[in-house]
Amino acid sequence: MAGTDSSRKAVLGGPAIVLVRPQLAENIGACARAMLNFGLDRMRLVAPRDGWPQDKARAMASRADAVLDNATLHEDTPAAIADLNLVLATTARPRDMTKPVMTPREAAAACRQALAAGEQVGVLFGAERAGLDNDDVVRAQAIVAVPANPAFASLNLAQAVLLFGYEWFQAGEPPPAEPGEPRASAADLANFYARLEPALDEAGFLFPPEKRPAMVRNIRNIFARGGLTAHEVSTLHGILSALIKLGARQ
Amino acid sequence: MAGTDSSRKAVLGGPAIVLVRPQLAENIGACARAMLNFGLDRMRLVAPRDGWPQDKARAMASRADAVLDNATLHEDTPAAIADLNLVLATTARPRDMTKPVMTPREAAAACRQALAAGEQVGVLFGAERAGLDNDDVVRAQAIVAVPANPAFASLNLAQAVLLFGYEWFQAGEPPPAEPGEPRASAADLANFYARLEPALDEAGFLFPPEKRPAMVRNIRNIFARGGLTAHEVSTLHGILSALIKLGARQ
Repeated sequence: MAGTDSSRKAVLGGPAIVLVRPQLAENIGACARAMLNFGLDRMRLVAPRDGWPQDKARAMASRADAVLDNATLHEDTPAAIADLNLVLATTARPRDMTKPVMTPREAAAACRQALAAGEQVGVLFGAERAGLDNDDVVRAQAIVAVPANPAFASLNLAQAVLLFGYEWFQAGEPPPAEPGEPRASAADLANFYARLEPALDEAGFLFPPEKRPAMVRNIRNIFARGGLTAHEVSTLHGILSALIKLGARQ
Repeated sequence: MAGTDSSRKAVLGGPAIVLVRPQLAENIGACARAMLNFGLDRMRLVAPRDGWPQDKARAMASRADAVLDNATLHEDTPAAIADLNLVLATTARPRDMTKPVMTPREAAAACRQALAAGEQVGVLFGAERAGLDNDDVVRAQAIVAVPANPAFASLNLAQAVLLFGYEWFQAGEPPPAEPGEPRASAADLANFYARLEPALDEAGFLFPPEKRPAMVRNIRNIFARGGLTAHEVSTLHGILSALIKLGARQ
């Protein structure tokens, strides 16, 4: 799979729209149209089922094909979001996960604000049938859920992108952001997990094996939710080292 | 062409969605889905190009076929809107017509208000290619225009219906909040700090003394911000014990 091409300049900017394991090329094309309708052109594709590029996506995108030309391709979600400071995950189904839930309107405002503060921002959209994996949702600071008829809530992929884009466009210029500390990127957090989880494995904490995936998700969710700063993530690294050192001394 | 069947009761209510001379049956089906997503089920069809009913509409509507069953068929726009007190016309192109222009959000609010006042309300959507005739637009009290990228503003029929429905749904009563997992109390957090901080003191992490207060504040802020659940705080206790244990083993 070709690598990302991060040197490619966004033309219109805005949050990255991250399509995670999309199935149908036509839907990728429809998403490109929905994005361009509302001035979004930074598409990231995580492992499209039928490979990439795809003529059918281009045919569907019609005059929005520049969005497809601009799209970057990624092997997995961590690779696609590594540079992002604010990651939001769209989901229709409620998840057993304690995480703030935003409407698309609130999400658009949060994205405007983060971008105005110089952060990198992206919104994850799952595959047509099943949506995002829990593992992907955990990586986000907040969930975006479209308020809809509970008896018939399912939207197709391009419609979900359309509604976010619509709110993004309407949110307009944000109020000037307070200059805050930069938030950690998803890669910063991933590095912390890559130290914490093996340590917990070694200590026998992530046991029994059949419960490990859920335990790991719950732990990641603790740290993903608060929107930690880069500095706070280094503090967590320090705490991890200090506790292990303490045990060694006792 | 069959007449209107005004005796048929709306199940969910809301404004009538009037599709004027729609071309593709699939799009009518997609509109039915978009309507039901947002609790709208009063569809009116003006002279669909390929006749009515249509199997292709039903296939596309999938579980929203009740909206199609409920749809009424009309010979022309005047017949379709005869009973309506408030008529809005969606259009992408600007028209040389002096008429108020509303966003979908404003239109949804206007519809809510009119319905609350006991009026009959409907929104006109034109055919896929050309949109509404000027003659139809003239019949409306106001125009509804979706704010979009001026360089790429065209939406398909079901998308236009979707955006109106989305705003309609949001303009209403907010759904009751879901009961989530109970959040940790301040005492739960304080208990965690009361174990973590002495451990970090002992490990020499909270050093030098003059910096200790600020370091402690920063660490507490990491955990306070996410709104942790009681369960997550116990997980943190477990992690703390596990890391110390790991150090003891190494």
